[in-house]
Amino acid sequence: MTHAVVLLSGGLDSTTVAAHAVREGYEVRGLSIRYGQRHVRELDAARDVADALGIPVVEVDASFYAKLADYSALTNAGEYALPQHRGREAMGGDVPITYVPLRNTFFVTLAAATLESWMLGLIEEGSAVPGDLNPAILVGANAIDYSGYPDCRPEFYDSVVEVLRLGSKLGTAYGVTMEIEAPIIEMGKADIVRYASDLGAPLELTWSCYEGGDRPCGSCDSCVLRAEAFAAAGIDDPAMQER
Amino acid sequence: MTHAVVLLSGGLDSTTVAAHAVREGYEVRGLSIRYGQRHVRELDAARDVADALGIPVVEVDASFYAKLADYSALTNAGEYALPQHRGREAMGGDVPITYVPLRNTFFVTLAAATLESWMLGLIEEGSAVPGDLNPAILVGANAIDYSGYPDCRPEFYDSVVEVLRLGSKLGTAYGVTMEIEAPIIEMGKADIVRYASDLGAPLELTWSCYEGGDRPCGSCDSCVLRAEAFAAAGIDDPAMQER
Repeated sequence: MTHAVVLLSGGLDSTTVAAHAVREGYEVRGLSIRYGQRHVRELDAARDVADALGIPVVEVDASFYAKLADYSALTNAGEYALPQHRGREAMGGDVPITYVPLRNTFFVTLAAATLESWMLGLIEEGSAVPGDLNPAILVGANAIDYSGYPDCRPEFYDSVVEVLRLGSKLGTAYGVTMEIEAPIIEMGKADIVRYASDLGAPLELTWSCYEGGDRPCGSCDSCVLRAEAFAAAGIDDPAMQER
Repeated sequence: MTHAVVLLSGGLDSTTVAAHAVREGYEVRGLSIRYGQRHVRELDAARDVADALGIPVVEVDASFYAKLADYSALTNAGEYALPQHRGREAMGGDVPITYVPLRNTFFVTLAAATLESWMLGLIEEGSAVPGDLNPAILVGANAIDYSGYPDCRPEFYDSVVEVLRLGSKLGTAYGVTMEIEAPIIEMGKADIVRYASDLGAPLELTWSCYEGGDRPCGSCDSCVLRAEAFAAAGIDDPAMQER
């Protein structure tokens, strides 16, 4: 039995991965993280997706994380002087404007803490034998995100697995390794759309738009990329239909 | 120049490490984390210690973390059914009652995000050349904490350094490695007290007691261990003097 914690952002990629985990027969729990993103419309989407897939999801408020990324803009001891977007701009052109330092390391750590707690609970309650457990963290990292994002590469995730093995009670006391599965890491966006469609993932509920309105704007970078992916896959985007 | 982020809990160990970093001539910033501990008296101590050492400190509210560790006690989809301490007790005897899943991984990740943001800021603003940077995260892990805590061992920290190298913009784009220094990792408690005293660390401001009153209770496990350490070092504990 694979117990899986899926990092669920409410977007196309993580929804595909969650649907993949359900189809694989994993016992799945979702984790949704508020980390200071511009809007939380995508977290509503994550809840809707989880409901549609029949999996529980927990949302945690880690909005302080955006402030850490602004520590660079600290001008007075002990105070954050600048709001988030000014801090990012101050970092200049070489760092992608959407780069958030160590965000995936942070996300995977939270998923791993959730997963370890779950597994320790099962073991200590006598509901599971360590040798039978096969816990996994599922992430929606993919090849397109790779460019400019070091923490979307397979070797990065391999190194994280080693940290989790060495740094957890589960790994050191029980010999159980938490694996990281990134089932769409080698796929392009069109392949992901096709795979999600094959899985019957609830794509109509996903949210990719950078804006936070009732409907996707259709014109931001994320909407444009999504439209190109659906077009390349030859599939109509159900999230763009009149509901 | 070494730029250092010190994880500052307000206790004896992290205060010693912060004083060590200041004495080494590092440019030091403190990071103090509320993660759902029983009381936040120690965070007041962290601020006082930082002031005494003349370093800035940022406190972040990650109190959701205690909830993640209770996910094991989840009985209803999407809801945390149990308060923190019942969740821990439910985990049984093999797991130390003070074990918090992957807490040090979590703490170091937050310190690393802070440090990377700081360094990227310096580089992008033109205030520093990557090759001149020598960033470090300082942690108060030590040999006594080792027992039962897998995430206090040197090999654990080595594996984290690799994750930070592979998963950061700083490591992959600029070739700058964030190191982890654990200057008291090989010391026993008495050695730490002696070293702290030699450094002139503000031990009178530190807080070790599990209770959250105005003065240490003197009788909890942590107070007893601390008293034994000071006695073994042959030094009076300044925090136990009448102020």
